[in-house]
Amino acid sequence: MFIDKSSKENKVVEADHTLTFQCYKLPLLLQENAPFIGELHLLDIGLHPAFLHNQSVDMALVDHSRVRQIFRRRNVFAHKGNFGHALLIAGSYGKIGAAVLAAKACIHSGAGLLTCHLPKCGYEIMQTALPEAMVMTDENETIVAQLPNEIEKYSVIGIGPGIGTANETQNLISFICRRFKKPLVVDADGLNCLSQQKDLLQRLPPLSILTPHPKEFDRLFGDQQNDFERLATAKQKSSVHNIIIVLKSHHTAIVTPSGDVFFNNTGNAGMAKGGSGDVLTGIITSLVAQNYSPEQAALLGVYLHGLAGDFAANALSEQVMTATDIIVFLSQAFLSLK
Amino acid sequence: MFIDKSSKENKVVEADHTLTFQCYKLPLLLQENAPFIGELHLLDIGLHPAFLHNQSVDMALVDHSRVRQIFRRRNVFAHKGNFGHALLIAGSYGKIGAAVLAAKACIHSGAGLLTCHLPKCGYEIMQTALPEAMVMTDENETIVAQLPNEIEKYSVIGIGPGIGTANETQNLISFICRRFKKPLVVDADGLNCLSQQKDLLQRLPPLSILTPHPKEFDRLFGDQQNDFERLATAKQKSSVHNIIIVLKSHHTAIVTPSGDVFFNNTGNAGMAKGGSGDVLTGIITSLVAQNYSPEQAALLGVYLHGLAGDFAANALSEQVMTATDIIVFLSQAFLSLK
Amino acid sequence: MFIDKSSKENKVVEADHTLTFQCYKLPLLLQENAPFIGELHLLDIGLHPAFLHNQSVDMALVDHSRVRQIFRRRNVFAHKGNFGHALLIAGSYGKIGAAVLAAKACIHSGAGLLTCHLPKCGYEIMQTALPEAMVMTDENETIVAQLPNEIEKYSVIGIGPGIGTANETQNLISFICRRFKKPLVVDADGLNCLSQQKDLLQRLPPLSILTPHPKEFDRLFGDQQNDFERLATAKQKSSVHNIIIVLKSHHTAIVTPSGDVFFNNTGNAGMAKGGSGDVLTGIITSLVAQNYSPEQAALLGVYLHGLAGDFAANALSEQVMTATDIIVFLSQAFLSLK
Amino acid sequence: MFIDKSSKENKVVEADHTLTFQCYKLPLLLQENAPFIGELHLLDIGLHPAFLHNQSVDMALVDHSRVRQIFRRRNVFAHKGNFGHALLIAGSYGKIGAAVLAAKACIHSGAGLLTCHLPKCGYEIMQTALPEAMVMTDENETIVAQLPNEIEKYSVIGIGPGIGTANETQNLISFICRRFKKPLVVDADGLNCLSQQKDLLQRLPPLSILTPHPKEFDRLFGDQQNDFERLATAKQKSSVHNIIIVLKSHHTAIVTPSGDVFFNNTGNAGMAKGGSGDVLTGIITSLVAQNYSPEQAALLGVYLHGLAGDFAANALSEQVMTATDIIVFLSQAFLSLK
Repeated sequence: MFIDKSSKENKVVEADHTLTFQCYKLPLLLQENAPFIGELHLLDIGLHPAFLHNQSVDMALVDHSRVRQIFRRRNVFAHKGNFGHALLIAGSYGKIGAAVLAAKACIHSGAGLLTCHLPKCGYEIMQTALPEAMVMTDENETIVAQLPNEIEKYSVIGIGPGIGTANETQNLISFICRRFKKPLVVDADGLNCLSQQKDLLQRLPPLSILTPHPKEFDRLFGDQQNDFERLATAKQKSSVHNIIIVLKSHHTAIVTPSGDVFFNNTGNAGMAKGGSGDVLTGIITSLVAQNYSPEQAALLGVYLHGLAGDFAANALSEQVMTATDIIVFLSQAFLSLK
Repeated sequence: MFIDKSSKENKVVEADHTLTFQCYKLPLLLQENAPFIGELHLLDIGLHPAFLHNQSVDMALVDHSRVRQIFRRRNVFAHKGNFGHALLIAGSYGKIGAAVLAAKACIHSGAGLLTCHLPKCGYEIMQTALPEAMVMTDENETIVAQLPNEIEKYSVIGIGPGIGTANETQNLISFICRRFKKPLVVDADGLNCLSQQKDLLQRLPPLSILTPHPKEFDRLFGDQQNDFERLATAKQKSSVHNIIIVLKSHHTAIVTPSGDVFFNNTGNAGMAKGGSGDVLTGIITSLVAQNYSPEQAALLGVYLHGLAGDFAANALSEQVMTATDIIVFLSQAFLSLK
Repeated sequence: MFIDKSSKENKVVEADHTLTFQCYKLPLLLQENAPFIGELHLLDIGLHPAFLHNQSVDMALVDHSRVRQIFRRRNVFAHKGNFGHALLIAGSYGKIGAAVLAAKACIHSGAGLLTCHLPKCGYEIMQTALPEAMVMTDENETIVAQLPNEIEKYSVIGIGPGIGTANETQNLISFICRRFKKPLVVDADGLNCLSQQKDLLQRLPPLSILTPHPKEFDRLFGDQQNDFERLATAKQKSSVHNIIIVLKSHHTAIVTPSGDVFFNNTGNAGMAKGGSGDVLTGIITSLVAQNYSPEQAALLGVYLHGLAGDFAANALSEQVMTATDIIVFLSQAFLSLK
Repeated sequence: MFIDKSSKENKVVEADHTLTFQCYKLPLLLQENAPFIGELHLLDIGLHPAFLHNQSVDMALVDHSRVRQIFRRRNVFAHKGNFGHALLIAGSYGKIGAAVLAAKACIHSGAGLLTCHLPKCGYEIMQTALPEAMVMTDENETIVAQLPNEIEKYSVIGIGPGIGTANETQNLISFICRRFKKPLVVDADGLNCLSQQKDLLQRLPPLSILTPHPKEFDRLFGDQQNDFERLATAKQKSSVHNIIIVLKSHHTAIVTPSGDVFFNNTGNAGMAKGGSGDVLTGIITSLVAQNYSPEQAALLGVYLHGLAGDFAANALSEQVMTATDIIVFLSQAFLSLK
């Protein structure tokens, strides 16, 4: 929870250290203010927790206690059918790795079953890398373009990692938006495909989750002056299209159709590398498959992704850790919620 | 060991906690009762062990002491020929992962040699994933349909993981049932193939092991009203066909031709994911190859599979653990029997 | 060191335990006596070490102190050219795993460079599994048959794992025996190829190393009545052909042209699995490349192979450990020699 | 820091131990003197640190304190665009492993994005081995020869590992030297290609980094009488061509255009194996991508490479450690700089 009292015009000093009282203020969470903040220190001034709790705000932090409330244990008698069947549509020639990362993250976040729809050139790569995933291949060698059979049987579709923006791939996304009634998780080139046919934003299944970084966001919703405006636009678009927007940044913001904004407080600069976003797509897709609500899945997924990244950075250094290592350290992140 | 005094008509309360005296009762082990049981507590009321031991029951728990009696150490002077040569028939296009999981589990459970018969599309995948396995490929690119050469030389055949139910594959199973005289281990689509030509149940080699989950069981033996009826049917069919039925569930039941039923007491909901069953097939096939009797192999295999899963869940969380991790933690499971 | 005073005619009792004074006797080391020995106990009767040391015997144990005398540290200023360039000729369709295991073992035992000559079907498998190895492919898709270019530039050739016994492959071995002047390490199907053209035994380069198990030995040198006769034959053939014979068994015997026999004292029944022999081939080939004499390489290689296996069994259990795990635990074996 | 007072004519004694006062002298760092030095001991004679610090020398040791001054933490608000996009041009038929090793090392050293340009035969291998890398393939099946699209968009190009010296590949390097304006990192066959068209040395982009071992150096710059002459030549060529020369040896020397020479003090003989150089190429390329100056990247890269190798040797032994293990232990090397 935090209170926004600052205004953008105050940007003057490039501080080495910034002290703030009790809780985060909005500008301290926005990427473009980074040069003016330096190292941030929260000073406890003894405000009563009940007072803070009673403040009515539409912004909040995603922290451990919030996430523990969302997290559910697996029922001991459950079988794989209880944890959903996710479909992942990903990859193109030279970018099958994005599909592998998203698929591994999905499998390692608890989904019951995962089927991957890939271009033919991804067949052996995925089957070698991840025996737990089933694979369907497109009729195309290098791109995905063909509507998979029986898409209605899947609990959720994750689409985007490494797919490129070929016309045929754009058409595929258009088909899916029209045929699939459960939430989509759209990332990366999936978002870029949407940017090229913006009318599809209206056709996204209710409570679909979009996970743009700032550039992808601006391609989708027009250029934004600054992070404040971008956040305002996200709130508006989230409400208009009834979607959840995960605006990726150092403090990733999850924006819901009801106008709530949640800032994530896990993660580190070691995740600023190719593949981290693919991993997030896989985690969120997996959580939706397990019947978390899309809002819960976005909050829990973003938090766990960052926390696993923090464990990885701690063990391996920010320089050395890779997107694969985020997946490896998901176990520590999940265990911390028990 | 347990005593069944409850009856199905008592299902009323959806308890958060259930207390029971001294030992499990049958209804407490059945999946469909899960909503009414909640968390189960066994209360020790001080019954004399000798009394319990002397009760004549046809049902028992698979627990550590029982499994230690079955488990055999490897003779120090033994060579690989002493531990059998398993044949695994598995995989189809997009489902080679199932073959890889079963093969890895087989190799990591002690078999002397393993040959995999795969569709051509699985060749590089298996050879890359598991150098310890030898590979034969079918004349078909995407399915298995061709009777492997010299099948009589193998100690056991495991068949089913990921094979699909193409007509040609069904024919292959029919050939094998007629030609192979040693036990088969049949799982997954292998069972579905049997469901489509039920006369083959009569032709299964003596003491073959079938490992259906409830839906596969019903496809094989007709719809069952409930878990009690399913168990009764399993006992009858096991006796009629002289086969061992491993009815997979939270407490997997191993049913033998002599009418004994053993309930397994290891495993967890983290195993409720695609691939777990393929791993079990590999373990049991491996144990039969090592000259455990099929009944012993089923008991020991089911127990070790669940125990490895428990070690995996403990180390990695139920959410994050995968079928591959069950294989990784087989070492801890086997070491616990030493 | 040990003294052979027992005779074969004494085999009567199938003992559970056998007590022997001070040191091993020959019959206690031979596989076929295993049923009569049970668990073996060496009783220290206080013989003076100098006395034992002064006994003139042509048999000895390969133990830690002997191996430490052979083992050399790497010179700090050395470069990769100082550690040789090994050539491995291995694999056929469905048995590329044998090539992978031998190659990994070679790389993980210290050779400077490794080139693998494989059938075309092994190309991607090896390059994916082991980036440290260079690969040449045969003109054949499924077998090796073509003499590699410039074979004289290699320090040693390891040949045999998984190559099959096709006529063309037999011819290749014949070519190599005639062209290559430095030692060969011949295993598995390489030995079976020799068995089919026994005149090649005369043409083996001096101090080549053959690593047969008893069946392969008998195919090469004729049926043997028992382990005593097999050992006598090995001594004779080793001398006649000026080769080193590694007769694999629980206590593997290394027989040298000068008539010495060394019995290995490491290893366990968890190594009685497909692939263990391929790993040994890789280790010995690597040691010869590093300029150990063939006799030293055989002693050191057999010892390290068994010791790594013992570490693997201890960590993973005899059932679960695989040939790959022997390679993984080579590090502990080498570290124990420091 | 060290002072060179010795002269080459003193080489007489092949010492087991050499004692020297306070700091290294040049001849003690040169490979060809190794037989005369034996084990080296630095004796502290109490020279005042300020005195040493004030000596004006053009040679220095790369040690922990120097490297910590170069090393930069990652800005917490950074995104992947801040860490550059490296292009790696590597591999040919049978030597795709060199590309995999360089690519893995690059990814594990902190670059934001990596694209690999490979011959077609490397496609599946790289995508299977390293999902974090994007892949472009050449129009050639077995070599790289085609200028990648949009090379100007990359922050740095690493070229050489495993590429061979085909004429077409030589032409590619020629094109790149003319078109690319930012630094190249050239290694292995990349250097051999330069040797065959020495006029390209003049066309290397400013501050390109060349990483020859002594033989590759001599092919580039003519035969050298000894290490002293080689070092003198390196200083001259570095200045003339405005490039950084990393002369690989036990104490690798980094020579800069301004005439400074830095001797590295990490590393061990376990790195004297195929693939170690490819790993170094990947690390340095990654550091340049992250906006370290080429001189800093060379110093930091050589130091971390050797330090990771030392951690690997300590954990696995010099014999068993591989080039891949250097990458695995990069995490410990980077963590030591925190």
